Amino acid sequence: MQTPETFPALDDDAILQLNADGNLRHLLTLKGLDRTTLSDLLDEAQRFVSPLGSAAVRNSSLAGRTVANLFFEPSTRTRASFDLAAKRLGADVLNLDVNTSSRKKGESILDTIYTLQAMQVDIMVIRDASAGVPAFIAGNVGDHISILNAGESDVSHPTQGLLDLLTIRQRLGDFADLKVAIVGDIAHSRVARSVVQGLHTLGTGEIRLISPPALAPDTNEMPFAKIIDNLDDGLRDANVVMALRIQRERIADLEGIPNVDDYYANFGITQKRLERAASNVIVMHPGPMNRGIEIESTLADSPSSAITQQVTNGVAVRMAVLERVSKAMASI
Amino acid sequence: MQTPETFPALDDDAILQLNADGNLRHLLTLKGLDRTTLSDLLDEAQRFVSPLGSAAVRNSSLAGRTVANLFFEPSTRTRASFDLAAKRLGADVLNLDVNTSSRKKGESILDTIYTLQAMQVDIMVIRDASAGVPAFIAGNVGDHISILNAGESDVSHPTQGLLDLLTIRQRLGDFADLKVAIVGDIAHSRVARSVVQGLHTLGTGEIRLISPPALAPDTNEMPFAKIIDNLDDGLRDANVVMALRIQRERIADLEGIPNVDDYYANFGITQKRLERAASNVIVMHPGPMNRGIEIESTLADSPSSAITQQVTNGVAVRMAVLERVSKAMASI
Amino acid sequence: MQTPETFPALDDDAILQLNADGNLRHLLTLKGLDRTTLSDLLDEAQRFVSPLGSAAVRNSSLAGRTVANLFFEPSTRTRASFDLAAKRLGADVLNLDVNTSSRKKGESILDTIYTLQAMQVDIMVIRDASAGVPAFIAGNVGDHISILNAGESDVSHPTQGLLDLLTIRQRLGDFADLKVAIVGDIAHSRVARSVVQGLHTLGTGEIRLISPPALAPDTNEMPFAKIIDNLDDGLRDANVVMALRIQRERIADLEGIPNVDDYYANFGITQKRLERAASNVIVMHPGPMNRGIEIESTLADSPSSAITQQVTNGVAVRMAVLERVSKAMASI
Repeated sequence: MQTPETFPALDDDAILQLNADGNLRHLLTLKGLDRTTLSDLLDEAQRFVSPLGSAAVRNSSLAGRTVANLFFEPSTRTRASFDLAAKRLGADVLNLDVNTSSRKKGESILDTIYTLQAMQVDIMVIRDASAGVPAFIAGNVGDHISILNAGESDVSHPTQGLLDLLTIRQRLGDFADLKVAIVGDIAHSRVARSVVQGLHTLGTGEIRLISPPALAPDTNEMPFAKIIDNLDDGLRDANVVMALRIQRERIADLEGIPNVDDYYANFGITQKRLERAASNVIVMHPGPMNRGIEIESTLADSPSSAITQQVTNGVAVRMAVLERVSKAMASI
Repeated sequence: MQTPETFPALDDDAILQLNADGNLRHLLTLKGLDRTTLSDLLDEAQRFVSPLGSAAVRNSSLAGRTVANLFFEPSTRTRASFDLAAKRLGADVLNLDVNTSSRKKGESILDTIYTLQAMQVDIMVIRDASAGVPAFIAGNVGDHISILNAGESDVSHPTQGLLDLLTIRQRLGDFADLKVAIVGDIAHSRVARSVVQGLHTLGTGEIRLISPPALAPDTNEMPFAKIIDNLDDGLRDANVVMALRIQRERIADLEGIPNVDDYYANFGITQKRLERAASNVIVMHPGPMNRGIEIESTLADSPSSAITQQVTNGVAVRMAVLERVSKAMASI
Repeated sequence: MQTPETFPALDDDAILQLNADGNLRHLLTLKGLDRTTLSDLLDEAQRFVSPLGSAAVRNSSLAGRTVANLFFEPSTRTRASFDLAAKRLGADVLNLDVNTSSRKKGESILDTIYTLQAMQVDIMVIRDASAGVPAFIAGNVGDHISILNAGESDVSHPTQGLLDLLTIRQRLGDFADLKVAIVGDIAHSRVARSVVQGLHTLGTGEIRLISPPALAPDTNEMPFAKIIDNLDDGLRDANVVMALRIQRERIADLEGIPNVDDYYANFGITQKRLERAASNVIVMHPGPMNRGIEIESTLADSPSSAITQQVTNGVAVRMAVLERVSKAMASI
């Protein structure tokens, strides 16, 4: 089968990722996962969290399984997180860093996938710059294979969403009571999309998307969220402030924000500006941070920062997802 | 010892790879391995094959052993296959992707090998673009080290040959009854050379090498095979048709075949052209495929295709070879 | 915290690497480690040495631990040595090859370190071209993390120093009786600095640093060593001759030594020149060797060469260090 030039976003990603019994078989998107599924995944992840300085939690639930990390887009931290998650569950791990250009010259994506499937890889962790690739792959693999989306274009980054949800729940409890402000380049952020989907499902009190107008999402896309273009307005009484990484190239195109200093002045999260947020406010960032551009450096290292906790939760969430899909597999 | 500029093909590769008891110590070439050795290896590999969807077969016969994958030529699939084979036998695996240019600037091949040997690597899997490198290394390592050839210039790719033999045996049984047609760039194909050596040893009924005249092998090289330059003639009553990957650059030099479409028209394997083959014909390809150039895309995914089965058998064959040389090691 | 532009060499690296009980917590430098600590480490490493051809020594003292190899400077052999050492102790290993340029573009070193720490990496093995990086990191990680220096600019390469000491002790016994000659680019050699620090602490009879004047160290830096610019003088009665790798670019700048042939004629270690050394002389080289430039090729492969023994000891020494810091960890 030829790989198509584009991968139209499937409306049924949400359906595709469940098996006939409604169990999670792939993780492509948080969209369409119900509140119980999300809560259960967070509970399962919580079991894999141990205090820093103590031994990492481990078990052998993936012993005999093979996990392939197939990264068509470079990544150090997400790849490392999946790698450790799989190893701490006893899986064999195959790391394949394949850049997109060699993909175009060489074999099609599907032939790569069929090859890994024929090598009896059980779980494939896919990162790709093109929208639709994880679902396209999930729609073409055998019944016994699980696909995990580790970052898909601007569209989706579901394990990042889950780790954000887990971090918020650990620090602040019930979502219904929370005002969550996400700040920065919303339009191009798979991180924002995934966490907003999860926050919405879990009944978050208020979700605010704060950005320069040029980086705001379509008003139709997340109708339950408030789109705000003034940082001070957006931060008022917020319990969670999540700064997104901004690409410097994008700043040059912003009207009235000609450089990074202006961006920092207008949309940088600082201790000072957080005075108008709730007293229990936590600050989050998916990493890697541009300190001094989207976030004040000292704030990132302050007690209100949950940034390293997010990283710890990242491994735990990925262990929970790996364990979950591997159980669905066993029951086939 | 200085690494020579060239590595003259050793006439005694076949002898070098056996230890004093006649057991396989290195795997450099299928040439010279007798029918019993080949059959036993295929039997051993068969034990490592399990149906897709079931758990991969594993054991701990290489526990405590170290396998180094030393790839001087890039490879994703062969490297992944050896990596998984070694891990599923419980070995520690060291993956070293060393490109040839850094080899020239830096230390000689032998110093790299002596270094790995001194680190108590037990088995080295070597892929190299120069003819003679695996045998040169095998001739210089200590008694307790095994060298496995994972692809050597145009000369040899013995584990690929074995996986092809295993696939044919699984699908079609006794080799004496078979007509096997290999199609494409025979002249530059280590895949073709290795499988032809194995097919000949196993007493294959008829071996046909089909290619444009410019890509045919020397008539002296494989005198037991028929050299054919017309695809339709070559396919008649064939039970096995193996398409080889063609490099696009080579097509430009072919007389009367100015482009890939012409190549496909003349030497591409299609469902239509297979009508003149035997009714039980299977189609094979070592991968990665150029769909629509050397093979029709739908044919590659059809029931007569054994292509993914080849990949599965690749892991099994490499497990068998690793286990076999590791046993010879233990008996030293 | 922003990563500083430069990392001033800390005077207290030696103190920083010990915990409150005086146990080794990091390994940043051999400077300041007392004779007992060094001897004990060599004894511990000796337990991990087994004859070539026998199985590598293994245990599970790092089971459940995670070791990250964070190489900001490329390295094949040191990375492979740490990788095998960690795996043979049962650790999970994360290999991260991050080049310095991406470090500058992307996140700061400390953010990378905080990320790995949050992933519950227990031991980080750091190689970096900038002086001060390992100590800077050690000064900023949590109490439960150990930092191992795997090569730091021109400054320090402590595990290389330890493996050199172990090799000398195995071959020649008591350091008090020995004359050790180190030959080549002393000025830029972290290898020379580390082994000289260790040799001095262990009471070596005489330490000679032999080089062209332009490549000699500061006279104040290692006052207990003799600086010599004539090879024949330096080799007289030497028991150990260690040749250092010379970078070809540096030769062009040497007065009176316009090319590699002249360098070999003046500072190359050959069998002939060793006639004036002690009868029990051993020849060492940290690798990778430039055969025919700093060392005669046949000499490197002769019985007086300890070069491959150094490599074997490298894995053993790294296992001992990993085990040692992991025990200090457990006692926190």
